[in-house]
Amino acid sequence: MKIGVLGTGTVGRTMAARFAGLGHDVTIGTRDPATTAARTEPDAMGNPPFSAWAAEHPEVKLGTFAEAAVQGEIVVNATGGVGSIDALTLAGADHLRGKVLLDIANPLDFSRGFPPSLSVKDTDSLGEQIQRSFPDARVVKALNTMTAGLMADPAQLAGGEHTTFVSGNDDAAKKTVTALLESLGHDDIIDLGDITTARGTEMIMPIWLRLFGALGTPIFNIKVVR
Amino acid sequence: MKIGVLGTGTVGRTMAARFAGLGHDVTIGTRDPATTAARTEPDAMGNPPFSAWAAEHPEVKLGTFAEAAVQGEIVVNATGGVGSIDALTLAGADHLRGKVLLDIANPLDFSRGFPPSLSVKDTDSLGEQIQRSFPDARVVKALNTMTAGLMADPAQLAGGEHTTFVSGNDDAAKKTVTALLESLGHDDIIDLGDITTARGTEMIMPIWLRLFGALGTPIFNIKVVR
Repeated sequence: MKIGVLGTGTVGRTMAARFAGLGHDVTIGTRDPATTAARTEPDAMGNPPFSAWAAEHPEVKLGTFAEAAVQGEIVVNATGGVGSIDALTLAGADHLRGKVLLDIANPLDFSRGFPPSLSVKDTDSLGEQIQRSFPDARVVKALNTMTAGLMADPAQLAGGEHTTFVSGNDDAAKKTVTALLESLGHDDIIDLGDITTARGTEMIMPIWLRLFGALGTPIFNIKVVR
Repeated sequence: MKIGVLGTGTVGRTMAARFAGLGHDVTIGTRDPATTAARTEPDAMGNPPFSAWAAEHPEVKLGTFAEAAVQGEIVVNATGGVGSIDALTLAGADHLRGKVLLDIANPLDFSRGFPPSLSVKDTDSLGEQIQRSFPDARVVKALNTMTAGLMADPAQLAGGEHTTFVSGNDDAAKKTVTALLESLGHDDIIDLGDITTARGTEMIMPIWLRLFGALGTPIFNIKVVR
């Protein structure tokens, strides 16, 4: 399948590499590919520059947000949540029309330091903002409740015995995403309902951040015991 | 142990009965005991009137918020979250001084219908508001992430194989609460840190409400797999 991944940070790289490893045809999109490709220093989080990652993943193509969106039959929003609407606008509403848009971002606002707050919450969500801004895209919120490594390869923790949520208005799009998630190793997938249920999953971030502090590792996830 | 439970709704009744069943000396507190005792009709949620419940639990004493606070060595806030500060003010700061105040409430605002929103969130929490309002109480937030039946008797689901969180500034108070929770059957208790971490647990409510809808039962809980 052709997959366009928007965002070249840790989440975008991790998902792009995993999809490529499963045989998908992946284009990773960024605002300015020349600038992204030219960086030689680690980013503010200490991640290696994109060029170092790209050298290890020659099968992943680099393009603009628009080129990744055009290329993808499924488009994955792995940009930082507070910049997602801008990035998707650059990707182009015309290029998102009718496509499954898998939104895995969280609207984390680091402007007041750590822990971040949420730029949207409770009575609205980033997932809903994206669906409203791009009404012809078929938005499915998923994977935003865990660290990137577990999004891509859940089986590395407890053999995958933990839970993944999907939210969205389009049942066929949720089926497509669910099949894709299963191919990654997610085996307890709960359909929460329409895109407004993204409020619930995005608001897991505050406890996730405190658990990260308390447990000292990001390699944990929620299992809904029932 | 002497336990004062503030609130005669489902949560307060369930916890009071469970504590009494374990042999504790329990007083349940309400704004106006005479009015509470005189009710003969089910409440808006369809719960039987207090008098019917009290007839089955003669070992639980009914008193004012203040009487329950005076009586309790541990005081449990099981009032509705948006009214908790008022109820605790009636209980009396003097009566809470130095005591462990186990806050199990959520700041759910039903004024705009269902699902409720949160009256405080993200950059503050009910737990913090209570600690600020009653600085001499030793506030511990816990149990607010699950339905009342599981708060009181977690072993009824998966033998208790799911997670309970504690947040608070006073380590000794958290130890007291942890021992009390273990006596109820909670066996995976994570200390998240100070009372600001209550932001994380209170913000679980939105996903809890959506899971309640998706699963069709309140008998579920989170397990932190790590």
